[in-house]
Amino acid sequence: MTLLSPPAEAAAQQLPYLTQAHAPLTHAVEVVNEFGEREQVQIPAERPLTIYVDKRELVTLMTLGAQPELLVLGYLRNQRLVDSVFDIDSVTVDWDVNAAAVRTRHGIARIEERTASKVVTTGCGQGSVFGGLMDDVDRIVLPDAHLTQTQLYGIVNAIRLKETTYKSSGSVHGCALFQGDELLTFVEDVGRHNAIDTIAGWMWMNPERGGGSGDTGAPEQSPMSGADKVFYTTGRLTSEMVIKSAQMGVPIVVSRSGMTQMGHSVAHQLGLCAIGRATNRRFMCYSGAHRLVLQPELAQPPVVPAAGSSHSREGGVAR
Amino acid sequence: MTLLSPPAEAAAQQLPYLTQAHAPLTHAVEVVNEFGEREQVQIPAERPLTIYVDKRELVTLMTLGAQPELLVLGYLRNQRLVDSVFDIDSVTVDWDVNAAAVRTRHGIARIEERTASKVVTTGCGQGSVFGGLMDDVDRIVLPDAHLTQTQLYGIVNAIRLKETTYKSSGSVHGCALFQGDELLTFVEDVGRHNAIDTIAGWMWMNPERGGGSGDTGAPEQSPMSGADKVFYTTGRLTSEMVIKSAQMGVPIVVSRSGMTQMGHSVAHQLGLCAIGRATNRRFMCYSGAHRLVLQPELAQPPVVPAAGSSHSREGGVAR
Repeated sequence: MTLLSPPAEAAAQQLPYLTQAHAPLTHAVEVVNEFGEREQVQIPAERPLTIYVDKRELVTLMTLGAQPELLVLGYLRNQRLVDSVFDIDSVTVDWDVNAAAVRTRHGIARIEERTASKVVTTGCGQGSVFGGLMDDVDRIVLPDAHLTQTQLYGIVNAIRLKETTYKSSGSVHGCALFQGDELLTFVEDVGRHNAIDTIAGWMWMNPERGGGSGDTGAPEQSPMSGADKVFYTTGRLTSEMVIKSAQMGVPIVVSRSGMTQMGHSVAHQLGLCAIGRATNRRFMCYSGAHRLVLQPELAQPPVVPAAGSSHSREGGVAR
Repeated sequence: MTLLSPPAEAAAQQLPYLTQAHAPLTHAVEVVNEFGEREQVQIPAERPLTIYVDKRELVTLMTLGAQPELLVLGYLRNQRLVDSVFDIDSVTVDWDVNAAAVRTRHGIARIEERTASKVVTTGCGQGSVFGGLMDDVDRIVLPDAHLTQTQLYGIVNAIRLKETTYKSSGSVHGCALFQGDELLTFVEDVGRHNAIDTIAGWMWMNPERGGGSGDTGAPEQSPMSGADKVFYTTGRLTSEMVIKSAQMGVPIVVSRSGMTQMGHSVAHQLGLCAIGRATNRRFMCYSGAHRLVLQPELAQPPVVPAAGSSHSREGGVAR
């Protein structure tokens, strides 16, 4: 073992340095309830985080602030401003000034042009990535992958058992990444977009190691594969969710909520397995059903199998 | 009665011509359920709508498409690109090409500059209006207005009785404008932002008539006052919701969902009455409680007043 600098190609394979900024995730406020009583409740924190890339202001995100460094990484990834995590030297978050300073190794080419083009497609945030991403959807080929009904129930159960900001204060979205039914990472945010971006950042920070010379040298690292992963969201399966999941190479998405038409259309086109309304033992597979290994014997029949029971599940929460 | 052109000042007070474009609000898809059965369910429609202002492309919104003309008007209003509804000559929506053509009477000054400045604050859509709006929050003075607990229950009940896309297909957000507990207008969209923008458009199309010369001439019209109105949303009370409500002059907001910290902070600063978690007879008034006329005798005690009952309502859906 030596203390010499790693060779040039190893430096290029170095993961960025990230701070680990912490801030409270809930905030106590006094409310008046229907009995006219004052009580204290927790609401989710929500704070601006302004991203500076090489000292240039890029964007301000409103976030819960649980894992801001990963959020910043994932934002740069999903906005496709940075091609590889190894292009980033560091992400420094300072909550005293609500700022994230990103230092890149070689700058971002044509950054002005690439951010300016987004102005015509904003509106709901959805739009801000939609225009560019849709162009590439045709080129995405999702890997062959399957999920069993047992694993699906395992995922729903793992989420149910999670101690969350959502449970203590409500009003946040949760996203998670699973391998089979094993929970790899779980993220909450006030913005659905932020939660999925944070997952993308987490995947970047956990590349898969190839051969190379073991942990004393610089093993070849490649981005974490999405092929054997499942993306879970509490939010609706919108086109953005489907596209971002596909972009991360994750061929299966699961949601507690329902699906929108554009989300359905893109998922169908991609052959992505989209499972919605997944609570307890119920679910609806909206597309890519060939990836789901059905085990209907595991589905409990409803307690009262009345004629109207299928109708009652059509509605659902827009999240 | 003559067929002469109206005088110039009357033309300036003319409401824009709006098409009444229709498109299906739900879309049937086949799903596979947990029993392995195929069934048909409805999902909300979701379609792109590209807004052109005086033939210049402005933005593409993803929308349910229920009232696209009002959405376009409200978008221009809430983005503060247009100061008065009378500055707009027409909004023509054509679903065959997913386009809304806006014709203004005098153009929009500095439109390039005003839309370009938004790029740094996007992210979740929230950001796209946040930067500019927050600057003006200090200047907003909300009118003195009150809501009784009886009226609040009336609002919650009116929403409950509404036949909605939400009930048939789920996954949409609803917004409504009330006068006391009288429902004035109700809008649903796949985007929360779109729903509130549509309400803003509706208010613009329903100005209040002043004296003038009756309906044969051109009575003076002023924007509908928000002072005696209540804004209802199924979504969370975010800073954007609070700011947009305040911008419309509406001092009371009611939601089925909870509140985020920035929403709370802005509402508190403005003295805006923010009531969340309003279902059945329960609610939490997060701020501006002086505007709420409490009638605790109307609140039914919980059936099982167990020690944990207040905890169970702290969580809630992020919408």
